[in-house]
Amino acid sequence: MSIDNAIHKLSTVLGEGLSLSKSELEAHGASETYFPLAAPDAVAYPTCTEEVSEILSICSEEACPVIGYGAGTSLEGQSQAPRGGIAVDFSKMTRIRQLSQEDMIAVVEPGLTREALGEELRATGLFFPVDPGANATLGGMAATRASGTTAVRYGTMRENITGLEVVLADGRVIQTGTMARKSAAGYDLTSLFIGSEGTLGLITALTLRLRGQPEAITSAICAFPDVRSAVACVIDTIQLDLAMARIEFVDTATACAFNEMAGADMPACPHLLVEFHGSETGVQEMAEMFGDIAADHGGSGFEWAARREDRDALWKMRHNAYWSILQSRPGKTALVTDVCVPISRLAEAVDAAIADIETAGLFGPILGHVGDGNFHAILMIDPDNPDELAAAKSAAESMVSRALDMGGTATGEHGIGMGKLHYMEREHGAAWPLMGDIKNALDPKGILNPGKLVAQD
Amino acid sequence: MSIDNAIHKLSTVLGEGLSLSKSELEAHGASETYFPLAAPDAVAYPTCTEEVSEILSICSEEACPVIGYGAGTSLEGQSQAPRGGIAVDFSKMTRIRQLSQEDMIAVVEPGLTREALGEELRATGLFFPVDPGANATLGGMAATRASGTTAVRYGTMRENITGLEVVLADGRVIQTGTMARKSAAGYDLTSLFIGSEGTLGLITALTLRLRGQPEAITSAICAFPDVRSAVACVIDTIQLDLAMARIEFVDTATACAFNEMAGADMPACPHLLVEFHGSETGVQEMAEMFGDIAADHGGSGFEWAARREDRDALWKMRHNAYWSILQSRPGKTALVTDVCVPISRLAEAVDAAIADIETAGLFGPILGHVGDGNFHAILMIDPDNPDELAAAKSAAESMVSRALDMGGTATGEHGIGMGKLHYMEREHGAAWPLMGDIKNALDPKGILNPGKLVAQD
Repeated sequence: MSIDNAIHKLSTVLGEGLSLSKSELEAHGASETYFPLAAPDAVAYPTCTEEVSEILSICSEEACPVIGYGAGTSLEGQSQAPRGGIAVDFSKMTRIRQLSQEDMIAVVEPGLTREALGEELRATGLFFPVDPGANATLGGMAATRASGTTAVRYGTMRENITGLEVVLADGRVIQTGTMARKSAAGYDLTSLFIGSEGTLGLITALTLRLRGQPEAITSAICAFPDVRSAVACVIDTIQLDLAMARIEFVDTATACAFNEMAGADMPACPHLLVEFHGSETGVQEMAEMFGDIAADHGGSGFEWAARREDRDALWKMRHNAYWSILQSRPGKTALVTDVCVPISRLAEAVDAAIADIETAGLFGPILGHVGDGNFHAILMIDPDNPDELAAAKSAAESMVSRALDMGGTATGEHGIGMGKLHYMEREHGAAWPLMGDIKNALDPKGILNPGKLVAQD
Repeated sequence: MSIDNAIHKLSTVLGEGLSLSKSELEAHGASETYFPLAAPDAVAYPTCTEEVSEILSICSEEACPVIGYGAGTSLEGQSQAPRGGIAVDFSKMTRIRQLSQEDMIAVVEPGLTREALGEELRATGLFFPVDPGANATLGGMAATRASGTTAVRYGTMRENITGLEVVLADGRVIQTGTMARKSAAGYDLTSLFIGSEGTLGLITALTLRLRGQPEAITSAICAFPDVRSAVACVIDTIQLDLAMARIEFVDTATACAFNEMAGADMPACPHLLVEFHGSETGVQEMAEMFGDIAADHGGSGFEWAARREDRDALWKMRHNAYWSILQSRPGKTALVTDVCVPISRLAEAVDAAIADIETAGLFGPILGHVGDGNFHAILMIDPDNPDELAAAKSAAESMVSRALDMGGTATGEHGIGMGKLHYMEREHGAAWPLMGDIKNALDPKGILNPGKLVAQD
């Protein structure tokens, strides 16, 4: 049993579909954030479920690590290969296998990116709402239980997948869930694989729940005097049950980065970016109600963007925030935090995070999905400066520790990977060993993405 | 190791909280539907999580079966005790442990009923949307992954619980999820326990996601010439992304039962019952749009109910449909089907079900949550007539078989229990053994609700 044996067998099966090229190994072992290179020993490019099944059968026989690879945009080292093995790159599995407009579902392969899906759906009157910042693959989004700016209205990947095709550690192919909208037929295996980061199986198809494109959309930016006012506005808005599709927070540092890198013209203060979906009169009415709430909390400088190009520009700026901030500090890399807290504690958590960043002496803009209580600090560090990495880790620990004390979580949407493994015992307490039990039951040899998410005996 | 030893130890620990009374054993072994009596050997009434933990520790030592019991309203025999053992009745655990209006969450004990929760929340401006027909307990609703008339808008129990407190088979107490709205921190244990029907652990607290009471609500009944027209109306309405809170179907037989038993005055044809939530102008606009769509499909006889008492009467009639139908045939019992199919196949599935019922020579009204593709046939049978039970089972098998062929599920919301266990292998295929693996990992002695939902080695 060895990785070398696995590579030998795989090259027979996959031929050109297995690469040992040094540049490809390094590309698949790199991280979007601060983790050092951890390259696999080979990269497989399956074209169908049967090939994924063969790859896992062989790797199971040879006890060879297997790491699923989508777009490589995860932030906690999920797609890296710290124990070597085979990266399974899904870039040749990008088909839409089925699209049913009446049922409002699409069955897609894991390598399809969310932007490519959006293009395919544009003419149908339907859309898929989940939108992490990166142009991630849908398989990767499912594996990390991703969300984004629209979760406040449409939910995360958990709420938008009705079934999965999964290849298990030993090569068996299973189907979870159905094409129906709901089911009470036994254990919710679909949810078990969503967010399992490739440690329980490799997802080879996803049944996605689509939504009808709203008749009207309007977006706005609004400035607030401080964090507390902006968050109070969010709480009031949610309680009124306004059908917000997005309600995003950016702090002063992020607003300044937008001005500097994306040509924005925002005052140097915290802002909310909001969007409403509905009928023409509905969004008009909601916009007015939101305007009143915002004004009550000192909101000012409203700019409503009803035209599609203005809205697209606004949300493109928001989605590119991470890269704008990276580009504003050439040569630096980032450690990105991702805590999520009960909304009643959000202002306190953000204020304290800003103080943590000041104490650490770092540049660290904050932005987040405040309707969910989820925010990110993008802590900029010099990758060759161990003191900066230590300071960033210390600030991040402080934010996580506070979030857990508040009844929240270490990660709202980025997942665990290698970067947050050390928080799991504290967050889950007595439930933590249960995750190991499940891992042992489904992947007894521990070949699936070892060293990530879960501890295994 | 024995049930008798367990009872002896439990009586020491629980005192008056353990009952051996024949009438209580029979009450806890009865079924809401056609299953014969299957009584436990004792009924425990724990008052706190610690007592549940002690019960499970003892029953684990003694390999004694343990069956969670809420309101006893499940339809597939989930709360019965075919292998004897201890029924754990949660009627003394009904507290709201925490209610946070700002966070829009409530932490409740499993014995609280959905109507009692509704009463507690009435003054807060918040509500909990999931509404199965029965006044079930929230613990039971979580255990069966229940839904109801509002799932089309608000989701099922899966989408409305952010965390659980669970006592495992060996008595360990765990907490899944957090008080935050979302999390990507490892395996989704919350979803694993939701719908597990007490076979993986006993739920002792639930963190529920609450919603803001809408500013305005309006409901309506509308008659249609046939099933196909009514379903076509539903599909068009969903695709327009109207914020329907409810869209329910009743067939001709159900409409007649409403007339006979609930004093309604409905024409003898299929109907849709709908409800919209939103602002005053929003619901007005949606009602008009829905009226236009319904008219396109031959809908007529619209009655809008904007007054609270009229709406309450309408939905009370809908929620009581099962009992109205039962009462219309004194001395009979019911076998209730629960298939859920992709909406594009719904009209075909309902028409075929009506034909199945005619072939079987049974009285079997049909009604359902058509926005989800989920419908029920209430097959009325004489409990002492084996031919009628056989005919009903055969009709139900035919409906399930068709639903599975259509890419649907044997159960949209009632769960598996004993009644649908034989469908599991066909519905899940290669995924079916995985459920047994998970059961073995979490309940190796098989003490938790044995004989239900899952096959165990």
